[in-house]
Amino acid sequence: MENLIQQSQKFKDLHREAAKYINLNPLQRGGILSDAARKIINEWADGYSVCDYCDGCLDLIKKPPVEDFVHDKLPKFLGTDAARVTNGAREGKFAVIHSLCEKGDTVLFDSNAHYSSFVAAERVGAKVVTVPNSEYPEFKIDEDFYAEKIEEIKKETKKYPKLALLTYPDGNYGNLADAKKVGNICHGYLVHLLLNGAYSVGRMPVNAKKLNADFVVGSGHKSMAASGPVGVLGTTSEYEDILFRKSAKHKIKEIELLGCTSRGLPIITLMASFPHVLERIKRWDSEVANARWFLNKMSEIPGTKPLGVQPTEHDLNFIETPAFYEISKKHKKRGYFLQKELKARGIVGIKPGLTKFFKLSTYLLTMDEIKTAADAFYEIYEKYGDLLE
Amino acid sequence: MENLIQQSQKFKDLHREAAKYINLNPLQRGGILSDAARKIINEWADGYSVCDYCDGCLDLIKKPPVEDFVHDKLPKFLGTDAARVTNGAREGKFAVIHSLCEKGDTVLFDSNAHYSSFVAAERVGAKVVTVPNSEYPEFKIDEDFYAEKIEEIKKETKKYPKLALLTYPDGNYGNLADAKKVGNICHGYLVHLLLNGAYSVGRMPVNAKKLNADFVVGSGHKSMAASGPVGVLGTTSEYEDILFRKSAKHKIKEIELLGCTSRGLPIITLMASFPHVLERIKRWDSEVANARWFLNKMSEIPGTKPLGVQPTEHDLNFIETPAFYEISKKHKKRGYFLQKELKARGIVGIKPGLTKFFKLSTYLLTMDEIKTAADAFYEIYEKYGDLLE
Repeated sequence: MENLIQQSQKFKDLHREAAKYINLNPLQRGGILSDAARKIINEWADGYSVCDYCDGCLDLIKKPPVEDFVHDKLPKFLGTDAARVTNGAREGKFAVIHSLCEKGDTVLFDSNAHYSSFVAAERVGAKVVTVPNSEYPEFKIDEDFYAEKIEEIKKETKKYPKLALLTYPDGNYGNLADAKKVGNICHGYLVHLLLNGAYSVGRMPVNAKKLNADFVVGSGHKSMAASGPVGVLGTTSEYEDILFRKSAKHKIKEIELLGCTSRGLPIITLMASFPHVLERIKRWDSEVANARWFLNKMSEIPGTKPLGVQPTEHDLNFIETPAFYEISKKHKKRGYFLQKELKARGIVGIKPGLTKFFKLSTYLLTMDEIKTAADAFYEIYEKYGDLLE
Repeated sequence: MENLIQQSQKFKDLHREAAKYINLNPLQRGGILSDAARKIINEWADGYSVCDYCDGCLDLIKKPPVEDFVHDKLPKFLGTDAARVTNGAREGKFAVIHSLCEKGDTVLFDSNAHYSSFVAAERVGAKVVTVPNSEYPEFKIDEDFYAEKIEEIKKETKKYPKLALLTYPDGNYGNLADAKKVGNICHGYLVHLLLNGAYSVGRMPVNAKKLNADFVVGSGHKSMAASGPVGVLGTTSEYEDILFRKSAKHKIKEIELLGCTSRGLPIITLMASFPHVLERIKRWDSEVANARWFLNKMSEIPGTKPLGVQPTEHDLNFIETPAFYEISKKHKKRGYFLQKELKARGIVGIKPGLTKFFKLSTYLLTMDEIKTAADAFYEIYEKYGDLLE
């Protein structure tokens, strides 16, 4: 025990180096707390803080006003009849798949789906069929393939898939398929649609009803300026009693949520940041314009081009940079040179070792910061220009 | 949209009233952050903070030293071969039951088990049989009944239960059954034992191996001075590959954890508080002594007595207070008078409306605070003494 105590002293003093840099990691850009949330973290950071006045249901807590947030504001925001707070988008997806599917059932995903969608299906024991993308360079999902795949599944399994999922946008290319069209197609076969809005809900306007989605998940830490882990999950009145079904023995507890989910700072920061999130969504167009400006600037580096559907409609983008790849082949630090050079210029968030392709986001960066980032890439290209010859 | 923005402004300014009071709510006492954790929350509160340098596995992150914590310190602490961080004790229990059981399988719980254990089994579709307690006033679990119930299950279903669970201690009476004995009995039938240590891991010494447990869960927000939601889950090398089995498609992702769990402040505060937690466990005996002092003091109020096995061996206790119940019958605020009177004396955490029985905890309160609390109850009893006649 004394040994363990001694060896654990280091955990007392953990600092976050990345906080001092311009962070281009798409994971991090939408989760930065609003000022309103940051102001109250000290008050709410202890353990179970929100549960002081709980009567047994997290979503019915009146003080702080969780009930009003979950049962009034959140469904309005998501365009759903009912909503809950979850431990994250992936936990929401698992809850939906687990509610609708038995082991052995088939679900249909876009092939750009996040790994956690596949893992959620695997945890349920559901078989996943994917709608192909157009491959390099657009990786576009053709909505009509949903019909084709649904019919294929019917032919092979004698049953329609239990659920279709669309990643909106996907987390690699920031592609936004036409969700409304996918929803229409699915509904034509009476297949339910789950929209994974981990990178859209809280960044851009998303209304599940208008997009023909029966279920929608969002991520608090990814895109709603909340302290992780936290997500949102919404559905229609049609599926509410299935998804949020209650325990037979403990009548007020919702089974898929294991009684309650985000019991602490995550839900409070989600709530405190909500007004900020609503405001920033109104400025979505300028975020997209900034991303386009950045991509355009990057294309001054010979060979560099954005992948995914162009012009981009999202702040998350995947860039092909053959020049950096060529440099990495000759640089003594290999692929790690790029990360090191960027860091020296105040920039982090590109996955270590990657040079040929990488994803990044300019979300909520100021134009000065975006310019600093673009200039940094160009400077690095220029610095090692001789290695390219 | 403008309406929603206007109606949501109130979420910007959420304060935690209870933070200013002596809080006797057992849920809250063990989750108060350590100084080391509190110091760094501002640095780590953003979204996905710990994932700056993630290569795809939360538990393998080197900076901050999550890997060292999860794969070295935590298993040593829990007395297990392997461990992971989860979104909470309930999520850990679900992962264990879901890994071991098919729909329709039977599991055996102590009848004092937390509601979330029952709901976790219900989510899996497992049938729960319970080991009875001795009922009022001790509500004691007789370990030998585990054998009896296992044989009953075998007789009825032709199979042994897939899992046994012991709540250690339970969350109502703070009863600590002899886990080692339960483990021995279960292992005699080759039944695995899951120990729910939500109220013990982080408060008192718990070593899964020594207690004959194959699985153990703990709660970061309940008992490890961490910001919720977060828990710990440990197991032996025998079950590690079952519980933490990996995805077929996404080879490094663990299915039951949906790839990753506590991605943010919860895991960082769990780590930062770990040295403090190790230290406080050494002082467990004095916490039990304080609880006994408090219960003894409370018994000066006529009729008052602690329920559960006595003398108590835990800080969480359930008290019967017939005097307050009698007062409530005549008081114009009915059962709510007690909460109101306590609050006027700087004390919160007794469930609103309860007077006949309620649970509370003195964990980590100073003797002065404990005395203040005991005096407050006595003063309230004296104040309304005339209503008792």
